[in-house]
Amino acid sequence: MIFDVLTLFPEMIENHCKYSILKRAIESGVVEVNTVNPRDYTLDKHKKVDDTPYGGGAGMVLMAQPYVDAYESVKKQANSITVMLSPQGEPMNEKLVLDLAKYDQIIMLCGHYEGFDERIRDIIKPREVSLGDFVLTGGELPALCLIDAVSRKIEGTLGKIESAHDDSFADGLLEYPQYTKPREYRGLRVPDVLLNGNHKEINEYRQAERIKRTKERRPDLLN
Amino acid sequence: MIFDVLTLFPEMIENHCKYSILKRAIESGVVEVNTVNPRDYTLDKHKKVDDTPYGGGAGMVLMAQPYVDAYESVKKQANSITVMLSPQGEPMNEKLVLDLAKYDQIIMLCGHYEGFDERIRDIIKPREVSLGDFVLTGGELPALCLIDAVSRKIEGTLGKIESAHDDSFADGLLEYPQYTKPREYRGLRVPDVLLNGNHKEINEYRQAERIKRTKERRPDLLN
Repeated sequence: MIFDVLTLFPEMIENHCKYSILKRAIESGVVEVNTVNPRDYTLDKHKKVDDTPYGGGAGMVLMAQPYVDAYESVKKQANSITVMLSPQGEPMNEKLVLDLAKYDQIIMLCGHYEGFDERIRDIIKPREVSLGDFVLTGGELPALCLIDAVSRKIEGTLGKIESAHDDSFADGLLEYPQYTKPREYRGLRVPDVLLNGNHKEINEYRQAERIKRTKERRPDLLN
Repeated sequence: MIFDVLTLFPEMIENHCKYSILKRAIESGVVEVNTVNPRDYTLDKHKKVDDTPYGGGAGMVLMAQPYVDAYESVKKQANSITVMLSPQGEPMNEKLVLDLAKYDQIIMLCGHYEGFDERIRDIIKPREVSLGDFVLTGGELPALCLIDAVSRKIEGTLGKIESAHDDSFADGLLEYPQYTKPREYRGLRVPDVLLNGNHKEINEYRQAERIKRTKERRPDLLN
């Protein structure tokens, strides 16, 4: 999987690739993360990438030319999709992540300031994705979340143990409570059922806890 | 606002604080971001912070002792809240962000691997927050999203212009299309209404576009 990220802050993306599972995936060649800075493509003599909005209003709007030219500089793979990170997009969820993981290349556009000139959408026709209903300063954190979540679905990225965790999320229930050593900590004991070695009872206990927790916290997931 | 982040990857948090609005907010003293590494608090002789789950199953569980001790090392302010970043939490949205912005200190617990020993929840009693219904490798990206979104609500963090943007999101409609120079780009022209200087017409056009776009993309927001 190749991720190409159009961003005015390439270091934000690059720094994050130095850690954890993403680092391993890049080192093993399963994942590749590139950045492209639209500022390197602006034809404006002052290197501007934004300007005031037509019709008035606060903030600055990202200009079409630097973004479209930067986008067109990216070498397209056969099985490629372009995603714009924007509060106006479809909310990110596990289904969307699985959809995106089917591609060989995801090109991402990160916004900042007041947003993109509408003609960037008209020309590039990206799939718009939102991290959630809250305002962030830019599209870089959403892009990193997408890279992390999608990378986890790609064969060879996760070890066997980690994969199992993702599978268990896929059925739409919250996790059961987990316990590790010691058996007692500050007077709080691990439930007896987890210590008796009866796997049938353990599975029943865990499934009951998952349903209980999902009912209490996220009844919307049960529909 | 003080953010204290319990994380096994403190550099992930620290790197991000070097950019954009967050950098300015830290430099001006409006926001403070500290990290605490539970690995520095483990009493295990091999410096372990995780172990296998009681009752069996894949993955490793974060041990109570290092997290609880690291948590108790954080100097508590009078008006403080503790947040656990976890897929089991309430989904993050603008209302939650505004709620959290009322505190003077947010202590955050970032997970990794299979999750937290349940006794960490029992003892610390955090408010659990989820970035959305998808699986990430750790709580660091969600913590950064929370820091970014909450910081934007704190007086003195944003300039006047940027604040206006946040206000406009608060009414629950998606944004209207934005355009900046030039008037024509690759044959695509800025809508005439934005060029005629009639502010009443411009406002009507923009409001109509916001409702249209919200209906098309996120009808759920209109309820």
